[in-house]
Amino acid sequence: MRTIEWDDGVVRMIDQRQLPQEYVIVQFTDYREVARAIKEMYIRGAPAIGAAAAFGLALCARGSVAKTRAEVLADLEEAAATLHKTRPTAVNLSWALERMLEQARKAQHTQVEQIVHALVAEAQRIADEDVEVNQRMAANGAELIEDGYNVLTHCNTGALATVDYGTALGVIRTAHEQGKRLHVWVDETRPRLQGARLTAWELMRYDIPMTLIADNAAGHLMRTGQVDLVLVGADRVAANGDVANKIGTYKLAVLARENGIPFYSVCPTSTIDLSLPSGEQITIEERDSTEVTHIGEVGIAPEGVPVFNPAFDVTPHRYVTGIVTEEGIIYPPFAPGLRRAKGATS
Amino acid sequence: MRTIEWDDGVVRMIDQRQLPQEYVIVQFTDYREVARAIKEMYIRGAPAIGAAAAFGLALCARGSVAKTRAEVLADLEEAAATLHKTRPTAVNLSWALERMLEQARKAQHTQVEQIVHALVAEAQRIADEDVEVNQRMAANGAELIEDGYNVLTHCNTGALATVDYGTALGVIRTAHEQGKRLHVWVDETRPRLQGARLTAWELMRYDIPMTLIADNAAGHLMRTGQVDLVLVGADRVAANGDVANKIGTYKLAVLARENGIPFYSVCPTSTIDLSLPSGEQITIEERDSTEVTHIGEVGIAPEGVPVFNPAFDVTPHRYVTGIVTEEGIIYPPFAPGLRRAKGATS
Repeated sequence: MRTIEWDDGVVRMIDQRQLPQEYVIVQFTDYREVARAIKEMYIRGAPAIGAAAAFGLALCARGSVAKTRAEVLADLEEAAATLHKTRPTAVNLSWALERMLEQARKAQHTQVEQIVHALVAEAQRIADEDVEVNQRMAANGAELIEDGYNVLTHCNTGALATVDYGTALGVIRTAHEQGKRLHVWVDETRPRLQGARLTAWELMRYDIPMTLIADNAAGHLMRTGQVDLVLVGADRVAANGDVANKIGTYKLAVLARENGIPFYSVCPTSTIDLSLPSGEQITIEERDSTEVTHIGEVGIAPEGVPVFNPAFDVTPHRYVTGIVTEEGIIYPPFAPGLRRAKGATS
Repeated sequence: MRTIEWDDGVVRMIDQRQLPQEYVIVQFTDYREVARAIKEMYIRGAPAIGAAAAFGLALCARGSVAKTRAEVLADLEEAAATLHKTRPTAVNLSWALERMLEQARKAQHTQVEQIVHALVAEAQRIADEDVEVNQRMAANGAELIEDGYNVLTHCNTGALATVDYGTALGVIRTAHEQGKRLHVWVDETRPRLQGARLTAWELMRYDIPMTLIADNAAGHLMRTGQVDLVLVGADRVAANGDVANKIGTYKLAVLARENGIPFYSVCPTSTIDLSLPSGEQITIEERDSTEVTHIGEVGIAPEGVPVFNPAFDVTPHRYVTGIVTEEGIIYPPFAPGLRRAKGATS
């Protein structure tokens, strides 16, 4: 199944917190449950939480007892505010919410039922488009991978981070499907271990050769000539090409440049935020200290230890070789290329 | 107590694998148990394993049933070989073993008992000197820390990594004791989490302000101006100043240089290995995959996942601002300074 699906008033998603030990499907009928699932990371990955937010608004519309268009809109705006504040860094969340609200606002139907129908259809379109966009992006990016390459990746950017197929991992899948021999170094990605738990699981299922490493080992591999390409995703790309992505991405970009290794971010144009001139304006989410102090129920640090736990970092555009989107690969200077790519889809 | 102590034919050490949850003292009377304790990391840290190896040979001498000087020497050489192969990267291990064997060889005593006595005394001297050397090193390094500094450190380089007091953490302790206000960013240091488990525990006991971070967050802190100084230890320093240290050190050095932050390695001259022209000749230990795939008994990756788990990396000397030793701080060009410092102690 897809990472997230709509089925007649029910939103189903994989509970990614339980992978790889358990493959559990959860289902929700209330947008507040979807908001909680995003916040608690049942579902994560910028494109996936965009789709989840859209389905959340579809649930809200369907469950609304409003009798007028104005009342439905008020309900939707309240739900959008709740969904919006779940996670601050990935722009796909607000992008999807805005697209859904736009659909509701422009609906000229006075019938509430027709608005509901339009919103469910729009959420489904957002989900379907994500899969299609990922495949175009993957086809564009696959040309970066040569036969025999060792590709290093961070966090999870696969089917689980999207509705299906993936961003950076989608590129890797496509190159593999094209018959290129490749091997993937998978950063475990502390603190939440999305690499160890999710990316390793996906790559093993796809039968793509891979090796798991502690995040600390990435530099050693690059310095000793064992990495040909670094591919990561993105949670928000500013107008100048600065990339916000999972914490630890910045160090990979610096190490890649230091060792002459190309570093690409792979993301749909929905991740580009032209309203922010640079990455300095991107809000970096800080998450609970227990993500660092505990693995499951096991404590790994002294009780009461102070913790700083930023979930993302910003990679300044000067370290980024290129940004792979469904509209093509954008190279420096990024600003005009990002405007063009964004313009092509809006 | 000290990290490791000799008490009338018994070697006692803290079982560091159990910290911070449990403070357990183990004791050994056979050098093979000491070898196992080093290999399984009951005790770790280059200076501490040097002392452990020395006490191991003292146990061997004491337990030997040899009747002649030649037979004792043969026993000691066999024990030294066993102790030597426990861990390949830290040179302090072979340094201490060589110093002990030298003592045995030069002993003109025909009485086996006198050789035993000489070896026990030499092991005790190695341990005592380590504490004294650490305090001199700490006094030298403390001048690098200015009032109000944020210092970032990696792995554990404190009392637990040495016989007592510490190397990089010793510098931090001395600056703190001098009344300087400082704050320490502690890398958790995957895969074995020596930062989260040991450094956090030590700093909390010393009442030194600290914050624990995932290793991935170090770059973000440096880029956003929240780190004034990086202090790490060393497991082996080559003749040209290349530093082998805990995996993840190299990335810190690159990130520090990229952000204009000084990066120092703190180590006794016993860690300097003039026999190796550069870091490329240093053997990098690879440890078991379960260090990456499991935290205690908890699996965090799919079963059967391939893992690469190097325990150390090499930081080329061009990224190293200086090397703090008990003989003073050595600056580039490192080769003459390292020779001088090593010469002063040999």
